[in-house]
Amino acid sequence: MDLIGYIESKREEHLNELKELLRIPSVSTKSEHKPDIERAAQWIAEKLRAAGMDNVEIMPTKLHPLVYGESLQAPGKPTVLFYGHYDVQPAEPLDLWTSPAFEPTVRDGNLYARGTADDKGQVHIHIKALAALRKTAGKLPINVKVMIEGEEEVGSVNLWEFVKANRERLKADALIVSDTAMLTKGVPSITYGLRGLNYYQIELTGPAQDLHSGVFGGAVPNPITILAEMIAKLHDRNFRIAVPGFYDDVATVSRQELKALNSLPWKEKEFRRTVGAPALNGEKGFTIREQLWVRPTLELNGIWGGYLGEGAKTVIASKVHAKISTRLVPNQEPAKIARQVERQIRKLLPKSVHCKFEVLSMGKPWVAPYTHPIFQKAIHSLETGFGKRAVFIREGGSIPFVTQMHDTFKVPCVLLGFGLPDENAHAPDEHLALENYFGGIKAIALFYEQLATL
Amino acid sequence: MDLIGYIESKREEHLNELKELLRIPSVSTKSEHKPDIERAAQWIAEKLRAAGMDNVEIMPTKLHPLVYGESLQAPGKPTVLFYGHYDVQPAEPLDLWTSPAFEPTVRDGNLYARGTADDKGQVHIHIKALAALRKTAGKLPINVKVMIEGEEEVGSVNLWEFVKANRERLKADALIVSDTAMLTKGVPSITYGLRGLNYYQIELTGPAQDLHSGVFGGAVPNPITILAEMIAKLHDRNFRIAVPGFYDDVATVSRQELKALNSLPWKEKEFRRTVGAPALNGEKGFTIREQLWVRPTLELNGIWGGYLGEGAKTVIASKVHAKISTRLVPNQEPAKIARQVERQIRKLLPKSVHCKFEVLSMGKPWVAPYTHPIFQKAIHSLETGFGKRAVFIREGGSIPFVTQMHDTFKVPCVLLGFGLPDENAHAPDEHLALENYFGGIKAIALFYEQLATL
Repeated sequence: MDLIGYIESKREEHLNELKELLRIPSVSTKSEHKPDIERAAQWIAEKLRAAGMDNVEIMPTKLHPLVYGESLQAPGKPTVLFYGHYDVQPAEPLDLWTSPAFEPTVRDGNLYARGTADDKGQVHIHIKALAALRKTAGKLPINVKVMIEGEEEVGSVNLWEFVKANRERLKADALIVSDTAMLTKGVPSITYGLRGLNYYQIELTGPAQDLHSGVFGGAVPNPITILAEMIAKLHDRNFRIAVPGFYDDVATVSRQELKALNSLPWKEKEFRRTVGAPALNGEKGFTIREQLWVRPTLELNGIWGGYLGEGAKTVIASKVHAKISTRLVPNQEPAKIARQVERQIRKLLPKSVHCKFEVLSMGKPWVAPYTHPIFQKAIHSLETGFGKRAVFIREGGSIPFVTQMHDTFKVPCVLLGFGLPDENAHAPDEHLALENYFGGIKAIALFYEQLATL
Repeated sequence: MDLIGYIESKREEHLNELKELLRIPSVSTKSEHKPDIERAAQWIAEKLRAAGMDNVEIMPTKLHPLVYGESLQAPGKPTVLFYGHYDVQPAEPLDLWTSPAFEPTVRDGNLYARGTADDKGQVHIHIKALAALRKTAGKLPINVKVMIEGEEEVGSVNLWEFVKANRERLKADALIVSDTAMLTKGVPSITYGLRGLNYYQIELTGPAQDLHSGVFGGAVPNPITILAEMIAKLHDRNFRIAVPGFYDDVATVSRQELKALNSLPWKEKEFRRTVGAPALNGEKGFTIREQLWVRPTLELNGIWGGYLGEGAKTVIASKVHAKISTRLVPNQEPAKIARQVERQIRKLLPKSVHCKFEVLSMGKPWVAPYTHPIFQKAIHSLETGFGKRAVFIREGGSIPFVTQMHDTFKVPCVLLGFGLPDENAHAPDEHLALENYFGGIKAIALFYEQLATL
């Protein structure tokens, strides 16, 4: 049976197997899910072995284990390193899911569960593509190294240690990643740019303990009010980030590139519908596409303080917390930006409160030189696998590892993403379109096949 | 045995009995504590009967029951109505209590537990004063009506219905309340002014669901940032409330009264130590005493939105919530202030978010005409019971019921408080000084005794 025919014949089997993986709540940010993380790693290792990978190992790290496997049976042929992650974001708020987050459910041609799009579904596409190639060709036409981590959603804290310690073993001619989204339904895409991510946490402390807002209100600092006043000063009227020096290193994007990005087939109306807000809100003077892909941001990701329960409690909080992140673009330097943000926070701080400022993670932005021939192979495989025209896009999200690999190994990174922007990655009702899951397996199998002639 | 000697002989018995009441977690804001509320009401009824009150009844309301009892055995003598509450604030955050909130513990001359100061300890002072009078004099020298509610911490939602339905029965020559604080340790006090309280909740909704802050960040409204920008505009640089019309109806306080209040024995240094913040923060142009007692406030009591958990989640929240309260002074009108606050919130609202604005409760401010002779009896009883000079003070907190009684029955309301400002009412480690608990029983017994000659 030919490669595509074989993959077509296995649709139901592939889908059922993916559902098994999605049922494991491998949430890496929460320590109570440690056993689920271990279970997911075991599952991945088992499927890699079943796909014919040799030397499959579960490598412990200081936090969550990494699964590694390789097939080096094609001497003289190119070697690729595939990277993915088996950990997922927390599913909260649970009550907003139509079907439970860890009970995969098909509705209207989509598979719903935490991790479908980000990134278990996409990892599974590669495992099944490799299995299909091996089955139909007898052996893999190229050399493949597979590395699936369990810490992507907590900033890949130990991944880099592993890469450095295994630098020789991991050497490859290209890095392949599927953790991004297609531009829109029916438009298979290769992502050539990612924003970097710095994540911060702030704690303000005013009164030494919570105080009665009647007895003390009017004379004491209220940390919630003060934090709000500080946050309000982090953007100007044009929604530019009001942190001195923040934009200093932002690289100019060529008119040609901007034109290409702005003329991609993309429906603003659909984007607005996906967002569902009464109006959009972005940096003045830039298109939505530019705001999302080539401009940096500063976003509040969480805030909490005082009484959060039912009804009324007349309290002035001692402490208030905020989680803040900045998305970075070339050539912003994460450590420099973190210093600038902290300096501005401390500058805005009134003397009536103390501030604890923590940098939870830092990550660089990345842009690929997509003239390398591997990108032509990738575009062609996507077009054949999906039967549609494929395009080059950028992405607003961050994959720190891509940047690190690019900087260290100096090899091309090819980001083939099969999610869609409205599939609620990181939110309730995350899902993956089945046509992209099945199309992805075909495209990836063809891509690995064609790499033999790179 | 004389009245004071009798009370002195019962110290241990009184304290042990109070501890029983404090062990019942009668938190009125949380529906899971309904059985504890019922248990506390039963306990109060039983002790009123033991103190010799007749016709003790537990009156059901739409929410939490009210305990009523009366002793009308002194024809021709004055009648007083005593009001208190047996419900308490939530104990959260539990981990900040030195000893558990509902396990009363004596340390350094203080009794620690939720409800010691607010208001179970003070209610118990009256119950034991009445019991002692009855025991030593054979019968009460005046007529007493006692009404202890279970909804004070949720805005006394059904109390007024009860009062209106029992208007004739509740008639009295004066209302006596002990739910306030003394100025400072060793200074027994009568409170003649209270601030009113309006409590609001705001919900902003931007995106229809939580969004990935990488994929969508930069082009969509972030409700947390927007709420912060709105909150920042609710005060001006001098910490005056920036709500048009807010101060229009604030009554002028005479220079004489301000002078009396500002010259009370009160140590700013101790206040600063109690607050424990790096610096104070209040409306410019007013003393701390004025900021707390005669000026209105707008305070943020709670805020929450986005990811509140451990670590990092790169999310843009769909919704953010805030709890806000305003403290009102004569002659601000609660309904008018609520309209002004809502109007300003809606004016500050950008078109990119929806806003739900709720008024959770409203309450008027109050000031007593303290020239009535009952206030002289009260001052004298306090001075005899405590052996110290007593003073007239105001309070920053609110007791909506006092205002309603004052407006309806046109009788003097005497607020004799035995708490202290640093006893953490509404916060972890709430406590009551034992010297004020024991002194209070003596002073109140003397006061009820002296009212026979009013």
